[in-house]
Amino acid sequence: MHKINIDEVPEESINRVYMRGVSIKYLIVEEFGAPNFEMRYFELQKGGKTSIDQHNYEHEVFVLRGKGKMVVKDKEFLLRPNDAILIESNESHQFYQIGEDPFGFICIVPNGVSRSKYKVPLNYKKEG
Amino acid sequence: MHKINIDEVPEESINRVYMRGVSIKYLIVEEFGAPNFEMRYFELQKGGKTSIDQHNYEHEVFVLRGKGKMVVKDKEFLLRPNDAILIESNESHQFYQIGEDPFGFICIVPNGVSRSKYKVPLNYKKEG
Repeated sequence: MHKINIDEVPEESINRVYMRGVSIKYLIVEEFGAPNFEMRYFELQKGGKTSIDQHNYEHEVFVLRGKGKMVVKDKEFLLRPNDAILIESNESHQFYQIGEDPFGFICIVPNGVSRSKYKVPLNYKKEG
Repeated sequence: MHKINIDEVPEESINRVYMRGVSIKYLIVEEFGAPNFEMRYFELQKGGKTSIDQHNYEHEVFVLRGKGKMVVKDKEFLLRPNDAILIESNESHQFYQIGEDPFGFICIVPNGVSRSKYKVPLNYKKEG
């Protein structure tokens, strides 16, 4: 068992300049025992946006806070809290923050697909 | 792409009497195109608890609202919003609602492991 709160994620596992106005926190990763998929938290500050991404694995996204816009292929979708989104393999996608408040969502991906810059802090401990 | 808000999940995909005081909504499932893992939303009303479960696949849980208690093997853990939890394969686990408000969390599992009573509504449509 591994349990962590977003607010407890240590500074080492925040990539603060992932993209313009975007931070990422790694919540559940393979190194904690996750055998199949990983959970990350993204937050976009005012004016923040992600790059246009396209890859051969899916995203499962759940919106926690704020408002956003998502462009998938050539279509736009407004996003709000409690939206659950499946972005399928090879669908191009990009996220934008909208309004005044930070736009935050969790994003789950298959293990091993997008961690090139991340190192798990050595002081991480499991509970349970 | 598939997008749905928790509040839009049609009645057909709510299992209202899954366990005592527990409802489940299927947010992202294999039939919508998810190739690897599925996302469900659980809500426990006042006094609600799940059964003691133990199985050969993991859960990844993210707490959205309310307060809860989780028993993993023989240890108790209090849960609050923004907690991310990995329950590993073969770890026994049980969830309880605590306090006055509903306790809600999303739970992600590998495809095909726990859907025996669920049928996807025929009127589900993809966006995008």
